[in-house]
Amino acid sequence: MNAAAPVRQPGLAERVAEVRALTLALAAPLGDADATVQPMPDASPAKWHLAHTSWFFETFVLRDFVPGYRPYDERWGFLFNSYYNGEGKRLARDRRGMLARPHLDEIRAYRAHVDAALARAIPDLPAEALSLVELGIHHEQQHQELFLTDILASFAANPLEPAYGADKDAVSAGMPLTWHEGRAGEQEIGAGDDGFSFDSERPRHRVWLQPHAIASRTVTNGEWAEFIAAGGYSNPALWLSDGWDWVQREGITGPLYRDEDGTAFTLAGRRPLDPQAPVTHVSYYEADAFARWAGARLPTEAEWEAWAAGADPCAGHQLDRAGPVRPQGSDGPFGDVWCWTGSAFLPHPGFRQPEGTVGEYNGKFMSGQMVLKGASCATPRGHSRASYRNFFPPAARWQFTGVRLARDL
Amino acid sequence: MNAAAPVRQPGLAERVAEVRALTLALAAPLGDADATVQPMPDASPAKWHLAHTSWFFETFVLRDFVPGYRPYDERWGFLFNSYYNGEGKRLARDRRGMLARPHLDEIRAYRAHVDAALARAIPDLPAEALSLVELGIHHEQQHQELFLTDILASFAANPLEPAYGADKDAVSAGMPLTWHEGRAGEQEIGAGDDGFSFDSERPRHRVWLQPHAIASRTVTNGEWAEFIAAGGYSNPALWLSDGWDWVQREGITGPLYRDEDGTAFTLAGRRPLDPQAPVTHVSYYEADAFARWAGARLPTEAEWEAWAAGADPCAGHQLDRAGPVRPQGSDGPFGDVWCWTGSAFLPHPGFRQPEGTVGEYNGKFMSGQMVLKGASCATPRGHSRASYRNFFPPAARWQFTGVRLARDL
Amino acid sequence: MNAAAPVRQPGLAERVAEVRALTLALAAPLGDADATVQPMPDASPAKWHLAHTSWFFETFVLRDFVPGYRPYDERWGFLFNSYYNGEGKRLARDRRGMLARPHLDEIRAYRAHVDAALARAIPDLPAEALSLVELGIHHEQQHQELFLTDILASFAANPLEPAYGADKDAVSAGMPLTWHEGRAGEQEIGAGDDGFSFDSERPRHRVWLQPHAIASRTVTNGEWAEFIAAGGYSNPALWLSDGWDWVQREGITGPLYRDEDGTAFTLAGRRPLDPQAPVTHVSYYEADAFARWAGARLPTEAEWEAWAAGADPCAGHQLDRAGPVRPQGSDGPFGDVWCWTGSAFLPHPGFRQPEGTVGEYNGKFMSGQMVLKGASCATPRGHSRASYRNFFPPAARWQFTGVRLARDL
Amino acid sequence: MNAAAPVRQPGLAERVAEVRALTLALAAPLGDADATVQPMPDASPAKWHLAHTSWFFETFVLRDFVPGYRPYDERWGFLFNSYYNGEGKRLARDRRGMLARPHLDEIRAYRAHVDAALARAIPDLPAEALSLVELGIHHEQQHQELFLTDILASFAANPLEPAYGADKDAVSAGMPLTWHEGRAGEQEIGAGDDGFSFDSERPRHRVWLQPHAIASRTVTNGEWAEFIAAGGYSNPALWLSDGWDWVQREGITGPLYRDEDGTAFTLAGRRPLDPQAPVTHVSYYEADAFARWAGARLPTEAEWEAWAAGADPCAGHQLDRAGPVRPQGSDGPFGDVWCWTGSAFLPHPGFRQPEGTVGEYNGKFMSGQMVLKGASCATPRGHSRASYRNFFPPAARWQFTGVRLARDL
Repeated sequence: MNAAAPVRQPGLAERVAEVRALTLALAAPLGDADATVQPMPDASPAKWHLAHTSWFFETFVLRDFVPGYRPYDERWGFLFNSYYNGEGKRLARDRRGMLARPHLDEIRAYRAHVDAALARAIPDLPAEALSLVELGIHHEQQHQELFLTDILASFAANPLEPAYGADKDAVSAGMPLTWHEGRAGEQEIGAGDDGFSFDSERPRHRVWLQPHAIASRTVTNGEWAEFIAAGGYSNPALWLSDGWDWVQREGITGPLYRDEDGTAFTLAGRRPLDPQAPVTHVSYYEADAFARWAGARLPTEAEWEAWAAGADPCAGHQLDRAGPVRPQGSDGPFGDVWCWTGSAFLPHPGFRQPEGTVGEYNGKFMSGQMVLKGASCATPRGHSRASYRNFFPPAARWQFTGVRLARDL
Repeated sequence: MNAAAPVRQPGLAERVAEVRALTLALAAPLGDADATVQPMPDASPAKWHLAHTSWFFETFVLRDFVPGYRPYDERWGFLFNSYYNGEGKRLARDRRGMLARPHLDEIRAYRAHVDAALARAIPDLPAEALSLVELGIHHEQQHQELFLTDILASFAANPLEPAYGADKDAVSAGMPLTWHEGRAGEQEIGAGDDGFSFDSERPRHRVWLQPHAIASRTVTNGEWAEFIAAGGYSNPALWLSDGWDWVQREGITGPLYRDEDGTAFTLAGRRPLDPQAPVTHVSYYEADAFARWAGARLPTEAEWEAWAAGADPCAGHQLDRAGPVRPQGSDGPFGDVWCWTGSAFLPHPGFRQPEGTVGEYNGKFMSGQMVLKGASCATPRGHSRASYRNFFPPAARWQFTGVRLARDL
Repeated sequence: MNAAAPVRQPGLAERVAEVRALTLALAAPLGDADATVQPMPDASPAKWHLAHTSWFFETFVLRDFVPGYRPYDERWGFLFNSYYNGEGKRLARDRRGMLARPHLDEIRAYRAHVDAALARAIPDLPAEALSLVELGIHHEQQHQELFLTDILASFAANPLEPAYGADKDAVSAGMPLTWHEGRAGEQEIGAGDDGFSFDSERPRHRVWLQPHAIASRTVTNGEWAEFIAAGGYSNPALWLSDGWDWVQREGITGPLYRDEDGTAFTLAGRRPLDPQAPVTHVSYYEADAFARWAGARLPTEAEWEAWAAGADPCAGHQLDRAGPVRPQGSDGPFGDVWCWTGSAFLPHPGFRQPEGTVGEYNGKFMSGQMVLKGASCATPRGHSRASYRNFFPPAARWQFTGVRLARDL
Repeated sequence: MNAAAPVRQPGLAERVAEVRALTLALAAPLGDADATVQPMPDASPAKWHLAHTSWFFETFVLRDFVPGYRPYDERWGFLFNSYYNGEGKRLARDRRGMLARPHLDEIRAYRAHVDAALARAIPDLPAEALSLVELGIHHEQQHQELFLTDILASFAANPLEPAYGADKDAVSAGMPLTWHEGRAGEQEIGAGDDGFSFDSERPRHRVWLQPHAIASRTVTNGEWAEFIAAGGYSNPALWLSDGWDWVQREGITGPLYRDEDGTAFTLAGRRPLDPQAPVTHVSYYEADAFARWAGARLPTEAEWEAWAAGADPCAGHQLDRAGPVRPQGSDGPFGDVWCWTGSAFLPHPGFRQPEGTVGEYNGKFMSGQMVLKGASCATPRGHSRASYRNFFPPAARWQFTGVRLARDL
């Protein structure tokens, strides 16, 4: 988080409570077994997300800044540390599905314990710790999105195809595609000093953009069906070499969770695909191949960010306490699907990794991943901004990932 | 099962009920998450065992012999068919841990449904179906043992090392080792026509045995500690070539579930090792290497069986309704640990595979596996006999497997 | 080798020279690159066979029994030790194809050096060493067969499909299949004390055989074509479970080196299949499935050996100096193809592993392999006997392996 | 290649001949077996390089532009097509080591055949074809470098460690490290329209660079030894997450080909490391970790290119007919080692993939790779320019890869 940013102390406790409550609400439909299963190494059990986000506050705030605080259970750091080498050894990522214990109720009790301790502590915390609380809020929001995408992966791995809850998929916008000229020449991107941002978004810096256009909306299921019908998945000329290897090796013939009968598995169970809704669950390789087929390309991160800079980051169809997702069309940059960019996730010029263990938050992942911009139907409302840098490896597609095209002018 | 054996109709319903009740009792200490986790492809979730044993009765008895019976849930055959190609496609074995649903309570309801239907049906079943009920009883007893060894594997995979229940490990016999001359010359082994036996145990047939001796008791933890101290795990001259590759590749330095601090993880949690108790959780490779180190060898199946033929198969320390395991020392052939033999699991001369899908029960596994004889502390009392042929691949060791030595005379 | 066997000293030097010359003759058609390629981890480069067989004599005879002998090159033991842990570290088996150096000419010079030293030494060697020379002869004969099967694998891996030389495949016998009653009751198998035998063939011992019949000839390509046409490779009911997994995983649809156009790749290049010739290059899994389909089974090792005991082991179609293979039909037990048996490669009762490093020769491979009996068109004439135990893992099929059926009476 | 660039017709035939002759000279020290071995999937046999570069001219020039030209051998396209999907099926990359045939002499004959046909054809070729000849020259130069690095990998895989020839390693410059301010603000990079360039280098375009400094020379073996001594390979805080996984999984403790005894394996055999010579054979992960340890970072591609723009691309220590490498110190941007940059290999803004099969040349590899700039001791003199974009995956290190540091100002 940004040490220079003035943390809004008034309201912080309320915001912590609000975010923590939303996470609990997301877990409400789940039984202990539902919350335990790990469908693949990349996806964590729901239970683990609930505990890990609590461990984050417990470790970096309560343990480090509250005199006399004792961990809820000394052994749980090993279980719920995600990837912080600075915090010592930990359970292998692909073994998180072994955690039948602690039971879900115990983890809820852990959350309550941490919440109470945080609430007591916040009034007296120093600025450095308050910054870490702020970071913890945003960290938990990231896990709210992963919570939903991992549950989707988990339920999809069950041949019974259980439904998690009400419809939470990307929704139809039903608009024709037009092209808008993007901002070119000398531009600025990246996060400045006001408001929260992750380390990787900073510093704000100048870039030079060539003339280009950006599509008015994201690619739809209907358009993707044309790509499939045109043999898109069997023509190597459309694909990056790594992408073609992936298609062949994995036998890929369409986006994840889609069946050839025109249905898709969603958080609401199996549903007919809406041809006007944004395509979701496509990899970078697929996004890139589609763009080539369409005679276009993916936008760069800077192009996307310069374009989105003025939009309202809360306007779109995102995860919400009320819904948890508000079914409402959006053609703005934020909501429905994350957009793959043609940019690798690398440090902005002048990037500085924070001191200490939280310095591992983003910097060490700047290799082998592509940047995604925007937000999705599973992104918590209030967690979006133009400078936000989401990132995944090029074959990942269990997130709500889609495509917005660009082209040179 | 043995078509020729006169099935004891009176009492069959009671025996079904009794065995089915013991399975439920074994599951009593488990929550839904405990029953869902799959620690490795070889081990199935507890939930799956509960359902699969019911599916067996439902499919081979109720569906095939009870007019008008309709499956509890049409989709569950895909989930709970273990390996019967004749029954169609099925969930991949290594994905059984994806079954957050059905919840444990639903599976208990399924069991109750099948139990009731079976109880209603038994009085009117034809002899062929009664034989299949008998087979289903023995099938379920096999899964009772797997239930316990798979739970042990599952709880061992959790860094919190939860305890399943009271002590159910092999127990100390504390006897000195002596050698008994085995039966030599022309002998008969295999199951005859009276009483239940699995297809693989039949037919009874003649063999010729060379003069040999068999140890009075199984190898102990204390003796195994000497083997380790003597560098047994680092001397290739003691090992089969495949065994040495396995030791090197997996970094094996002692039996499964043992720590270097002299403790072992058991169903009762972590416990100090009793040096006088039988060693457990060793692979065939380890058993063979130990025997070579000890200047002895493993008994052949026929040697073991000829020796054990007169013993009481219910005398030992086995799984029991009362306990579920009765902690009582045993130096007989049945109880505490399964004994690896030097014999591959291959058909007895004259073996005939039963007609139909149940013909897949044993015959198709006669490749790449070694025979184990006897019974263990997790074998249900009443499930033992001299002709019984247990089998596992040579590297398997999550069962209660041990060693009884033999030598040439 | 059999320490008790009287080694025929007169003629030993001549026999060494003869065997060594045949090996060189086998290499005559090869260039340095041909002799260097390793097509798969199981198959060694021709160059390596030439050197390894020399290393065997150099190490176990010259180094150990000839005072003052110095190895040709100190570094070559690391390269050409096959699997003797007692001889120290060695090149990984799957890296033998890295040996561009030594060049083929250097290895020929090495052979000449060892041959000369052996010839000088033999007159003065003690009995123990002479036994090892005898073992070295038989060892080299084994590698002559592997030399040919590995060259076949190597040339088959080249899309240009080069031919190694004249026809050396199994040949047509063109006889109808009849059944002969095998020897039953109390029988003796295994090698006795006269004549050379490998450790694994000993001791001679009694067995009890049930009544059975053995086929008058091996299964032909024509019969195998019927099995394929009948859907043999797509019916799981015919296969062992491991075999079916192998078929599915590897996409097996017929014997190795066969194309669907009715041709097969042979040492003489691509050739039309002779429907009356013995089927070759089938795995144990395939042999077992074919037998089940044919309503028969594989013979056990003891059945085969008792049947073959009286036959002339030199009568068949085998590898010969004259040819190197004499194209001549054979319906006896020796020649054309090795026959898979239904017996695992395990110690004979009373087996004793020789002292010292040569004790690793056979004993440590008694796990995970099936016994093959007889001889093939690539077996050197004079290397056959009824007690001979060839062995390979159940999926191996790059040897000249075939099927002779048996059935219960 | 650049369709707009005026191809220098006078001299083209001479340049082809010169480049083709250098490739042959590189192969002069090799026997057929040396030229056949493939040490890892990434590295091709020398023989394959010789043939593939000829296939390139034969296919894209002779076949497509010379009426009546018939391929030297119809079957060789399958063998020597590298990765052009547009040219149909091909030998799997990891099976190139199976090519014992064609023998090396046959491939030399193939080269002569193609050379003669090219020489005859050039005077009459249309401009489009001449551009492809130009591309073929540069393509062959790329393979000259790979030829040497693959031979190094191949000889290093042989425990005998044969020497390829005279010293061709990076040499000592022996200069102190100083920092030079790089060009900042608005800059131009990429290739313009005059002179040859690969598609990926184009178009020339504007970028914005932040203030930064670049080191006066590359990192030395002596400095790398300090990094190792300081525990650089065992401190996860220095590494990218993927890099740390790689270090752990592969057991990396230093640059490739180095031993702990202070020697390294080189094309001249095993040699003592010169502490003042540039470190070579390090991966991007290592380069990045070293830079972090040194309190610096890797330059971006644009920073490096803007800095190097004015330097003489032929000044450094590179591959030369005379030597083949001229042993001469260099502190300029070109020579000794390729420098890893912090930039992913992605299209320059406005990049256009050429039409047809040669469009697969670079574009499809723009995923999962990092850019390297400069040249190495194995780069043919005359093949360097500031806009040149070499690329490899982040774990690759069998090239002559090194590190030049940068830092923010």
